[in-house]
Amino acid sequence: MAVNLNPPQAGQLPAVAGVELLVAEAGIKTPGRKDVLVVKLDKGNTVAGVFTRNRFCAAPVQLCQEHLAAGVQIRALVVNTGNANAGTGFDGRARALSVCRAVAERDQLQTEQVLPFSTGVILEPLPADKIVAALPALRQADWAEAAEAIMTTDTLAKAASRRLDIGGKAVTVTGIAKGSGMIHPNMATMLGFVATDAAVTRPMLNQLVREVADQSFNSITVDGDTSTNDSFILISTGQSGAELIDSAEQPAYQQLKQALLEVAIELAQAIVRDGEGATKFITVDVNGGRSVAECKDVAYAIARSPLVKTAFFASDPNLGRLLAAIGYAGVADLDVDRLSLYLDDVLVACEGGRNPAYKEAQGQAVMNQSEITVRVELGRGSASARVWTCDFSYEYVRINADYRS
Amino acid sequence: MAVNLNPPQAGQLPAVAGVELLVAEAGIKTPGRKDVLVVKLDKGNTVAGVFTRNRFCAAPVQLCQEHLAAGVQIRALVVNTGNANAGTGFDGRARALSVCRAVAERDQLQTEQVLPFSTGVILEPLPADKIVAALPALRQADWAEAAEAIMTTDTLAKAASRRLDIGGKAVTVTGIAKGSGMIHPNMATMLGFVATDAAVTRPMLNQLVREVADQSFNSITVDGDTSTNDSFILISTGQSGAELIDSAEQPAYQQLKQALLEVAIELAQAIVRDGEGATKFITVDVNGGRSVAECKDVAYAIARSPLVKTAFFASDPNLGRLLAAIGYAGVADLDVDRLSLYLDDVLVACEGGRNPAYKEAQGQAVMNQSEITVRVELGRGSASARVWTCDFSYEYVRINADYRS
Repeated sequence: MAVNLNPPQAGQLPAVAGVELLVAEAGIKTPGRKDVLVVKLDKGNTVAGVFTRNRFCAAPVQLCQEHLAAGVQIRALVVNTGNANAGTGFDGRARALSVCRAVAERDQLQTEQVLPFSTGVILEPLPADKIVAALPALRQADWAEAAEAIMTTDTLAKAASRRLDIGGKAVTVTGIAKGSGMIHPNMATMLGFVATDAAVTRPMLNQLVREVADQSFNSITVDGDTSTNDSFILISTGQSGAELIDSAEQPAYQQLKQALLEVAIELAQAIVRDGEGATKFITVDVNGGRSVAECKDVAYAIARSPLVKTAFFASDPNLGRLLAAIGYAGVADLDVDRLSLYLDDVLVACEGGRNPAYKEAQGQAVMNQSEITVRVELGRGSASARVWTCDFSYEYVRINADYRS
Repeated sequence: MAVNLNPPQAGQLPAVAGVELLVAEAGIKTPGRKDVLVVKLDKGNTVAGVFTRNRFCAAPVQLCQEHLAAGVQIRALVVNTGNANAGTGFDGRARALSVCRAVAERDQLQTEQVLPFSTGVILEPLPADKIVAALPALRQADWAEAAEAIMTTDTLAKAASRRLDIGGKAVTVTGIAKGSGMIHPNMATMLGFVATDAAVTRPMLNQLVREVADQSFNSITVDGDTSTNDSFILISTGQSGAELIDSAEQPAYQQLKQALLEVAIELAQAIVRDGEGATKFITVDVNGGRSVAECKDVAYAIARSPLVKTAFFASDPNLGRLLAAIGYAGVADLDVDRLSLYLDDVLVACEGGRNPAYKEAQGQAVMNQSEITVRVELGRGSASARVWTCDFSYEYVRINADYRS
């Protein structure tokens, strides 16, 4: 049961000029299921990406990074579910390349102009022949169908869109994502693809993809594990006719960044809302730090603590667990007497202990909600960070313990 | 159900000359339960300790550190369960001091010669008056009874002992510990007290307590959370008549360290075996690293991963989760092609993927055991680290979600 998450509706997901979506059923793992997505990009586009830092990164992740660095224009993305092509060594690389080559031949491109993405079972050979055999059957799709085509253990497809106006030109941002927990044999990789018809230079798109990822996909945690295949791709086609963004100083840069952030945050939150066994959606805000890094450390200490997460599951306003997590977050010179802790707007702890005016009924009322904000004021600076997570339930253990039975 | 753990037997826990144990029932939380332990130390002893680094450290932890730094000889420890005196601010400090003062008056000591320890409910005022009122009722106890007196959510008391010979003199090392997960309102603090009748100078005892803690209590994890009250104390009374240890170069230093390590490791392992909901006892060995720190990072990434821990609970030889945890442990330049992964003696992964000769039945046979060793050979240096943990079960969620219901 996802937390306050609805399936995307095609009518609310406008197309992005210069982006063509194609799907097919290759029967990689489940016959009849949409499991291949090809994203065709018109000439003149720009593509940028950020990828998992897991040292066991998968063959397609390595190829994506090489192809993006090759200096050719990316003209197609090919995504398969059902097999992650991870932990597969040199053979996995050859299989991913063979898929890129087949997509390239179909559209008379170079192999390096195709980016491959895989998600699903790890440590199994990619059935590249099945993917190649399905390419002739590719059919046009909308963004909602594309979102369905990349699902693995997701209970709902994930898509989001925004419109904005840049200098009188209508600009669209539309994106899709997948991912819940990290399940083996379907290690639930996080994949995100966001496209816009705004025009952005490659250096600016590289900057945008990092800035946007930091505040969206890099600010969520379901179980603290990061997968071998995580990828986030930003595409700009330039077909809106809006001015070219070639400097972060342009007002259009901030306008576009805001729209991209809204789409990416909605997608990242959807992954948390669809987290394995999730019953609560938790926002952790940490303010008043000396650096963003220390704020993120505190936020993640709270968001990753199994004790905090089971307390949310139990709707238990358990201040001790929250304070202890803040205390061990690694901020070496933290003065706990200057710190304040809120559940939504209720001040629960200050001056090193429980707020004398706090009544447990107040905390209980907040904990009973399905959406809760934990706010920590560190009282030592002006930096902030925000992280989203979900609770930790019996269902999480059941899903992850019983998956192969 | 603790994993392969038996209650301590008084006959196997020899007394340590110069240490007197006293227990009483103060009714702090549960009437009739042993909840106060006083450890009286003869003149001529030496005491050293290491404490939680949690910034929300409790009032007694602060006082312990101050009293150990005061330059007076410690003559008594007073431990209570049922209340942790944590998150209690200045009032908590005053209450802990009042307990120290009462113990000191009873034996004509200075307040600074008494070390206080508390474990139990946090954010509640310590009922110091109950502890003080129970002091006249203190009665002599053996080490097994002392171990019982410091239990909170532990299902079994924890004690261990070793005998050794230093230059023809019989030396005893005996200790007790408590702790399972970190439960609120009983935040299950880790407390460890180990005493020996060997003679050790204060600087050497300070070194020993750090070295021993690093390889025992600092090498375990149940749920990754560290409490506000964790403390480990080493006592040497010198009454064995063995030579004074005043240098780490003395053979006696290594002899004593070995015995202390064996006792501390047995106690630390007992905490893991009694971990909340534990059904498996897991040893994680990481070898071939460039530094102990990076080996510990890899070991803890495995030992803390909820996905790995639920796989152990399910007896699922889930290589993907193990490899992914190694991959995100933060060893930036790790070459996964040089890495080998073993379950007990079964080589399951090498050269960046699954060992071609590995059969899942082999991994399954290991995973079905109640005690499992995960061994990672990083292949990039000669450093090693070892960490102990347990699995992650429905019972963990039940204990932590239902505790207050």
